[in-house]
Amino acid sequence: MLKDFAKQDRPDQEELKRRLTEERAKLNAYQMKIKEAKLPVMVMFEGWGAAGKGSVIGKVIKNIDPRFFQVATMDAKPSVEERRMPFLHRYLVEIPEAGKFKFFDTCWMEEITDGVCDGTISEKDYEAKIDSINTIERQLCDNGYLIMKFFFHISRKEQKKRITALLDNENTRWRVNEDDLWENKHYDECLAIYDSYLKDTNRTAAPWYIIEAGDKKWAELQVLTYLNQGIDTALKNHALAVPIRQNTFPMKKTPLLKDVPLDKEISDEDYKKKLKELQTELRELHNELYRKKIPVIIAYEGWDAAGKGGNIKRIAEALDPRGYIVHPIASPEPHEKARFYLWRFWNRLPKSGHIAIFDRTWYGRVMVERLEGFCSENDWQRAFNEMNEFEKELSDCGAVIIKFWVQIDKDTQLARFTDRQNTPEKQWKITDEDWRNREKWDLYEAAIDEMIQKTSTTFAPWHILESVDKKYARIKALKIVIKEIKKACEKAGK
Amino acid sequence: MLKDFAKQDRPDQEELKRRLTEERAKLNAYQMKIKEAKLPVMVMFEGWGAAGKGSVIGKVIKNIDPRFFQVATMDAKPSVEERRMPFLHRYLVEIPEAGKFKFFDTCWMEEITDGVCDGTISEKDYEAKIDSINTIERQLCDNGYLIMKFFFHISRKEQKKRITALLDNENTRWRVNEDDLWENKHYDECLAIYDSYLKDTNRTAAPWYIIEAGDKKWAELQVLTYLNQGIDTALKNHALAVPIRQNTFPMKKTPLLKDVPLDKEISDEDYKKKLKELQTELRELHNELYRKKIPVIIAYEGWDAAGKGGNIKRIAEALDPRGYIVHPIASPEPHEKARFYLWRFWNRLPKSGHIAIFDRTWYGRVMVERLEGFCSENDWQRAFNEMNEFEKELSDCGAVIIKFWVQIDKDTQLARFTDRQNTPEKQWKITDEDWRNREKWDLYEAAIDEMIQKTSTTFAPWHILESVDKKYARIKALKIVIKEIKKACEKAGK
Repeated sequence: MLKDFAKQDRPDQEELKRRLTEERAKLNAYQMKIKEAKLPVMVMFEGWGAAGKGSVIGKVIKNIDPRFFQVATMDAKPSVEERRMPFLHRYLVEIPEAGKFKFFDTCWMEEITDGVCDGTISEKDYEAKIDSINTIERQLCDNGYLIMKFFFHISRKEQKKRITALLDNENTRWRVNEDDLWENKHYDECLAIYDSYLKDTNRTAAPWYIIEAGDKKWAELQVLTYLNQGIDTALKNHALAVPIRQNTFPMKKTPLLKDVPLDKEISDEDYKKKLKELQTELRELHNELYRKKIPVIIAYEGWDAAGKGGNIKRIAEALDPRGYIVHPIASPEPHEKARFYLWRFWNRLPKSGHIAIFDRTWYGRVMVERLEGFCSENDWQRAFNEMNEFEKELSDCGAVIIKFWVQIDKDTQLARFTDRQNTPEKQWKITDEDWRNREKWDLYEAAIDEMIQKTSTTFAPWHILESVDKKYARIKALKIVIKEIKKACEKAGK
Repeated sequence: MLKDFAKQDRPDQEELKRRLTEERAKLNAYQMKIKEAKLPVMVMFEGWGAAGKGSVIGKVIKNIDPRFFQVATMDAKPSVEERRMPFLHRYLVEIPEAGKFKFFDTCWMEEITDGVCDGTISEKDYEAKIDSINTIERQLCDNGYLIMKFFFHISRKEQKKRITALLDNENTRWRVNEDDLWENKHYDECLAIYDSYLKDTNRTAAPWYIIEAGDKKWAELQVLTYLNQGIDTALKNHALAVPIRQNTFPMKKTPLLKDVPLDKEISDEDYKKKLKELQTELRELHNELYRKKIPVIIAYEGWDAAGKGGNIKRIAEALDPRGYIVHPIASPEPHEKARFYLWRFWNRLPKSGHIAIFDRTWYGRVMVERLEGFCSENDWQRAFNEMNEFEKELSDCGAVIIKFWVQIDKDTQLARFTDRQNTPEKQWKITDEDWRNREKWDLYEAAIDEMIQKTSTTFAPWHILESVDKKYARIKALKIVIKEIKKACEKAGK
């Protein structure tokens, strides 16, 4: 794309001025429409060092009220702490909320092309990362985000001139870093790398716009024009349904709920003995996975009163509190609801060597949100695949993902609800909502079966915990957690 | 305290077991009471390396539902990024919300004593930091927090034994760091330093508890007992009024609003010329302050329709978007409301070299929250001093703090409201609330005068911007910002 980029027709000075005024006013008028339509707008500025990205961002935001935009300035290299997360993490926590703009002064492109330039990203890594980027860009677009991607293009000569000018002033010298100098020296090599990246990520949902950045005003006009155009299209299409993708992940066979026998139990004596043994084993393993820097995600879903809390407790007891966290997931807070629905989970990922236990999860989308109409049909239908993609991304980053469905039958639930109702210390655990959900048992069961069948992948399978005998379920959960972590530790080597 | 710490009477095995069961049940029962009383509980674990802090935290949290607690594990040394913030920042962003526990596996003590041990914190620094710690601990307590501080104490011999055991196991070896070894080697020296710290921060609101940590079960019992005791007291005292402290900060004389003449204006021609000059100057200064790593806070308050937005815009236009952020402050979100009211501002501080512009600020506490009854009288009365303390902390860390009150008269406001009402593109800027607030003009004026008189300190004075002529106010603001930043840059040296 870059190599054969045809020079655009730059308008003359007067025309430029006229059009700038026009486009600025347009953007200014759009901000309220964006707010009304709850459209989140993510704008990525990438390009050559010293191409004037910052300066154009400064011009563009002049037209927007500070309440409606933010600028995220990203380093090309992640920090040591950030490296303990999937590489997309530090960008995703920054995505805009509904009705607002977020301008990224370099986004995930720079990290990748930088890595290719300095040889820290191999060809295989590169391909995997391009896949991850295309997937997440599509997910965001499918979930109503407008993504605009600008590449600021200048010639080798122009870059040289600008770098020299910056170096000449004591107060701007810090703006020039080693990378900029290197880039200018290896211009053609970089050009080829950037070109490949642009081509590899130039998808329908979020295409690239190359900006001739030799002249600031002209660059501003190009950005404003494309941005306004993009907004116009997005506002027209907003909240349209999008295609449901085929689910092509490798699946693990898992039974339907009705076929799970619930008569499994364990004696008190056996339970005590095994619990102690397994907890000791898990405690030791926790040290090992910390040392080997493996992140672990344990996700719990299950019927109300199925015994999730007690089950989680038996896992957590065995762990060092410095190395794990339990995330109780309730309905999203306003600032969470205003963003991509997986955002709050991206925000709660464990760093390498840590364990995150989710008490309820992202699967709320295809259970309560589906059945209560908190999202559209298209939303939850798309979600199965989106969740598989999400878990694949984490799994590819080395995470162990263990998903538990805690299963009981309807009668057992009733007995436990009644017990909670009648025991003062347990009353806080039972709400009207629990009773209401119970009435929809059959609808839920169908939704859960669909969920398990569609998201039990080989890399993140569902495990069903038969929990009529809670003790049996706890021992089973501990065994699975130990087995999966052990496998990962062995794979990680010494 | 440590040096002459008298050995406690350790109960015999049977008694220990009985009391443990009792205290565990007590803590378990307290969690719902804490939730109901919306009491936030902050528990700090400090002490010798390998004294078993983590293990006791693990025991304590067994008694609490994961929905009601979190563990924060803090490094003794802040990261490079964290060093760009006041040292308290990384802890304060972690404080618990109302009704929940947060357990800190080492908190600000370790950072300080560590620094004293390795000589990176001078005696003068130490004193300043002790002041900061005592102030923030008191602020949190005054604002309804329960703070429990435990110091885990073991003998040199015991520590040596434990370190050796950890080193012997491949999977626990990582738990022992250089500092632990150094500490054991320089036990007496460290003891003296810890002792001083404990003494210097042993205040009524948040006293220290030294825990004999030679035996794990005994340590657990001590922690549980003190914790339950602390909760008991806090629940009894919860939401009591606390003394209003004397405001002893150096003040800068600032006029009452009624004495501010509002007839100042500037010609269009003059405005255009000066605006351009000053923005150019500010742009250049922004580079300099970035290089010199000075953080800048510009806080805007003012009447509705006084012209805050346009004023901020003229400042922002001159700045590089990578180095500043505008924080529009609306009413707090639920997760913000559930914490210390200054938390959301601690969370939005600029890092060194950056500028944060606040469109409305923490002063909402003594204006809208006071007049609408969103906080108690004791709360807002205490707030003047708390804000001065907050700004002093930031100022001592090298931050430039510029506070603007944007002033107009009642007639001007009416004219602007009417104009907004009648101009379609401006209608979103005017709400029923604006009209309601206008009715309370006199009450607000009295509150604002009190605020300005009580919080116009020499290190963070209020500047009144006469904004009947908005252009005049913009030029004045630019001049003040330039002057204050220049002063700081000069002070910072080359």
